[in-house]
Amino acid sequence: MYDILKQIDSPQDLKKLSMDELKMLAQDIRDALMNRLSKHGGHFGPNFGMVEATIAMHYVFHSPVDKFVFDVSHQTYPHKMLTGRKLAYMEEAHFDDVSGYTNPEESEHDFFNIGHTSTSVSLAAGLAKARDLTGGTENIIAVIGDGSLSGGEALEGLDFAGEMQSNFIIVVNDNDMSIAENHGGLYQNLRELREGNGKAETNLFTAMGLDYEFVADGNDLEQLIRAFQKVKDSQKPVVLHIVTLKGKGYTPAETHKENWHWSVPFDPETGKPKFSGGGENYSSITGDYLMEKMQKDKAVCAITSATPTVMGFTADKREAFREQFFDVGIAEETAVALASGIAKNGGKPVYGVYSSFIQRTFDQVLQDVCINTNPVTFLVFAASVWGMNDVTHLGIYDIPLLANIPQLVYLAPTCAEEYVAMVDWAVEQKQYPVAVRVPANGVIHSDRTFQKDYSDLNRFEITKQGDTVAVIALGDFYQIGEQTVEALASQNIHATLINPRYITGLDTELLESLKSGHQVVVTLEDGVTDGGFGQKIAAYYGDSSMKVKCYGLEKKFYDRYDANALLNELGIVPEKIAEAVSKML
Amino acid sequence: MYDILKQIDSPQDLKKLSMDELKMLAQDIRDALMNRLSKHGGHFGPNFGMVEATIAMHYVFHSPVDKFVFDVSHQTYPHKMLTGRKLAYMEEAHFDDVSGYTNPEESEHDFFNIGHTSTSVSLAAGLAKARDLTGGTENIIAVIGDGSLSGGEALEGLDFAGEMQSNFIIVVNDNDMSIAENHGGLYQNLRELREGNGKAETNLFTAMGLDYEFVADGNDLEQLIRAFQKVKDSQKPVVLHIVTLKGKGYTPAETHKENWHWSVPFDPETGKPKFSGGGENYSSITGDYLMEKMQKDKAVCAITSATPTVMGFTADKREAFREQFFDVGIAEETAVALASGIAKNGGKPVYGVYSSFIQRTFDQVLQDVCINTNPVTFLVFAASVWGMNDVTHLGIYDIPLLANIPQLVYLAPTCAEEYVAMVDWAVEQKQYPVAVRVPANGVIHSDRTFQKDYSDLNRFEITKQGDTVAVIALGDFYQIGEQTVEALASQNIHATLINPRYITGLDTELLESLKSGHQVVVTLEDGVTDGGFGQKIAAYYGDSSMKVKCYGLEKKFYDRYDANALLNELGIVPEKIAEAVSKML
Repeated sequence: MYDILKQIDSPQDLKKLSMDELKMLAQDIRDALMNRLSKHGGHFGPNFGMVEATIAMHYVFHSPVDKFVFDVSHQTYPHKMLTGRKLAYMEEAHFDDVSGYTNPEESEHDFFNIGHTSTSVSLAAGLAKARDLTGGTENIIAVIGDGSLSGGEALEGLDFAGEMQSNFIIVVNDNDMSIAENHGGLYQNLRELREGNGKAETNLFTAMGLDYEFVADGNDLEQLIRAFQKVKDSQKPVVLHIVTLKGKGYTPAETHKENWHWSVPFDPETGKPKFSGGGENYSSITGDYLMEKMQKDKAVCAITSATPTVMGFTADKREAFREQFFDVGIAEETAVALASGIAKNGGKPVYGVYSSFIQRTFDQVLQDVCINTNPVTFLVFAASVWGMNDVTHLGIYDIPLLANIPQLVYLAPTCAEEYVAMVDWAVEQKQYPVAVRVPANGVIHSDRTFQKDYSDLNRFEITKQGDTVAVIALGDFYQIGEQTVEALASQNIHATLINPRYITGLDTELLESLKSGHQVVVTLEDGVTDGGFGQKIAAYYGDSSMKVKCYGLEKKFYDRYDANALLNELGIVPEKIAEAVSKML
Repeated sequence: MYDILKQIDSPQDLKKLSMDELKMLAQDIRDALMNRLSKHGGHFGPNFGMVEATIAMHYVFHSPVDKFVFDVSHQTYPHKMLTGRKLAYMEEAHFDDVSGYTNPEESEHDFFNIGHTSTSVSLAAGLAKARDLTGGTENIIAVIGDGSLSGGEALEGLDFAGEMQSNFIIVVNDNDMSIAENHGGLYQNLRELREGNGKAETNLFTAMGLDYEFVADGNDLEQLIRAFQKVKDSQKPVVLHIVTLKGKGYTPAETHKENWHWSVPFDPETGKPKFSGGGENYSSITGDYLMEKMQKDKAVCAITSATPTVMGFTADKREAFREQFFDVGIAEETAVALASGIAKNGGKPVYGVYSSFIQRTFDQVLQDVCINTNPVTFLVFAASVWGMNDVTHLGIYDIPLLANIPQLVYLAPTCAEEYVAMVDWAVEQKQYPVAVRVPANGVIHSDRTFQKDYSDLNRFEITKQGDTVAVIALGDFYQIGEQTVEALASQNIHATLINPRYITGLDTELLESLKSGHQVVVTLEDGVTDGGFGQKIAAYYGDSSMKVKCYGLEKKFYDRYDANALLNELGIVPEKIAEAVSKML
């Protein structure tokens, strides 16, 4: 097993192989992918589809002198295997040696930590410009999947590259898929180019000023090697459009491409997942709510930027609600502006997006939506220490990002019932742009009663009246707040518990009233404290004798952490908070 | 004078005019533009170029039922004249009745406050989607200048529109200019289309899935009216590519398009400005520094996203430094990613950008640059209450935006000498991404000595040792801090004055030391306090008896304000601060 792959310690070793051996290497890589993915999970389809292209790139070019920049970089498992990191795929004991993305700390063959889409062309253009400034002669190669092409940064990058006058190779890996199906007019052009064997009436890439080459079978090593040899050392930017099969080599993945974009551990024989996700979660709660709403009210619509299932819209449901469900493709900026336009003209738009990706839309939220006070509803998912834990996918920066934008109302529900109440208010009201921070600590139900109308802004709720200490516990840290109050009770401190609900403004009346009978205020928030919610409260009390302690995450790039261990380290556990508070009294 | 224009109170009045009268109306509009612009200043070239197209649009379509969305909306003076706001151009007493951009509060013919580029297609697509959801039948028309096409949001929007299946008209106003010359590969395609009378080997718009129509002379009313009539009520998205002359009708503006994009008041006879800008400013200081540096070191390069003169690079200087000066066009995201790539491969990139526009790059600064710790230098201009004062161009949100991103070092110089020292350190060091907040309170020189090395992060500087009160005065509010200390001295309070220099981290040692001998800390920052610098200091002292008062702007959308009046209203004047502080003692 892995007979050829075992011989490869660096790309140099690859160059000695015959074509037959290269093909055996492709099989070894797929075997190693299957080994890791079936046991550990990870990005499946993107890696199976890129095996031959990666081999061909390393065969023709001289990495790391020649430099590859992979978009999203979730398709770089084959690249990692060929650049000294094969054990992380062959042997379970080494699985944790590597991240799921390119990582300069792992290898000189990786140039950037990349996890967001649509960045490779512009980043690689920078490598090329610096090469030209400093007199280098290496090849610079950006690899971008067709799904990423719709992102603004990628399209800007192609346009910029169209004016360059030196070596720059852009590999467009076209598998006719984003995570879900592709969306956008340009995919029609890619289809025409595929069907015309690289010829069509018009061509997006030459329209951007780029040269263009086509490879009909991007899983055919000979074709790929010839094509890379042709563009190598070219002195003008060129797009190499290669057609690959997502999931190539594993029938279930070739057939069900969306499901196999990313996989949990599974049985290779049957393709069945080892753990069933199942059960209630905020995606299903959101989808159930929205679909019922859409059926009743044709003005309600949902918008996604290529991650429809986070709102519970699986393929069948997208089809059922196709008049009211819009997938803009990877195009977060347009998603936000579109929502603003819809709201302005009488629609009720709901944009569901991961916290990590709403980062792309600060200017659109501020300019396109909030200056215009258009009643868009944003649902911000995985905004939490319990969200994605790769450094490129952290969802912990959204509070400083969004909560300091004027006009926006950012709400933090503490449980499922409050979440639905807040979302429903957001959708039906016409006064404000509203974002709702979807809890990420599992689905917690509550039999507390929740108001339906949140238009009287910035009213915090005292859920347990006490004295001496007030615990203001935001969103899905509310339960930690509850437990902190219990821990304090065991020290005979009967603290007040507050659900602030609003991230974007302070209940100054309530805060003022706390000054009588309370000496310490504790704030808890599931995100970085810098620029966040608690600091506003600390500033509010700045000229008083109230003591304030803010709990939350540090302003850091955490990577592949254990959430509970991190919370413990930061002292964000009820007993530790209670202990710290009692010392402040 | 204005014989025809005087008759126009709404677009309905326009429809009764003969072709000859429409042409006279065009002249009236130009006369009124000249009247306002020569006395008041404003966007010149964009408005003179769009006179005929605006008349034709209002002649053919039925605004406000049919809806126009103008990109940037700095070309909407003719539109405003035709929709009930003509006096603001004809009579000086009414100049202040209107903003420089579309504004729904002014007129039912305006749908959005728009000031940033590249948003019209996506916003208008939203209007169209809502129309389809709610059963409307009106025409939706987006107008976008060619300069704005390179922006990611615009390209995303075109791609999204390419999949729509209902009425949507995109007018591309092609005058072959951005503010400066256009940059990007797509402009080659526009040129080919112009030269081929709408035909070329490839076509960016059809490649995005859009239908396409061409108007050779976009300043010819007959051609325009025919073209708009042809696309009216179309049931598929269509691009109408019209070729206009920027500045049409005024020779100096037709000739010197970049200079006449925007004008200060001028003498219509000679075109000479009534006030000479002249003198030293931070653009000239930046340009002088960079050009000297570039001459010595070929690895240094400057990047702009279509606003080259903010870094002092006028056309002649761009040409002189063309190997090291990169204008990416309106494409802020690519500018940031490009800088990251350049830094990674041995270059020394400096990206100069307005605070208002760096808002487009939060994700790129965080992901493309800071996660990768690449030593990019950002120069953030007009980040100030004294910056641009239109609601769409405020530069007061950058501290919450940037200062809460991990790894970034954000520096706030207090004068010209400190600015150059900080920039030079940023350019030469290799450890950190560094942003420098360019002062906006005029060029203040100082004979204080400034260190050259800022790598020992987060060291605040005590510039005047006192006691009881410490004034921490950030960046260009330092002088207000100085004066506050003087005002306190007259009350016999001998305060400590601190230049914090670093926005992104606290000097905890110094802050700790203030606890002895000081009872009150005042923070001053030239931006919104929410999520900003002072709140971090308030939170730091939260569990101590130190009192903290944070001064800065409120989290609001200010519009066309007087900076000094606003500062006075907020109490950010030395005497008022001193008074407030003395009450806290």
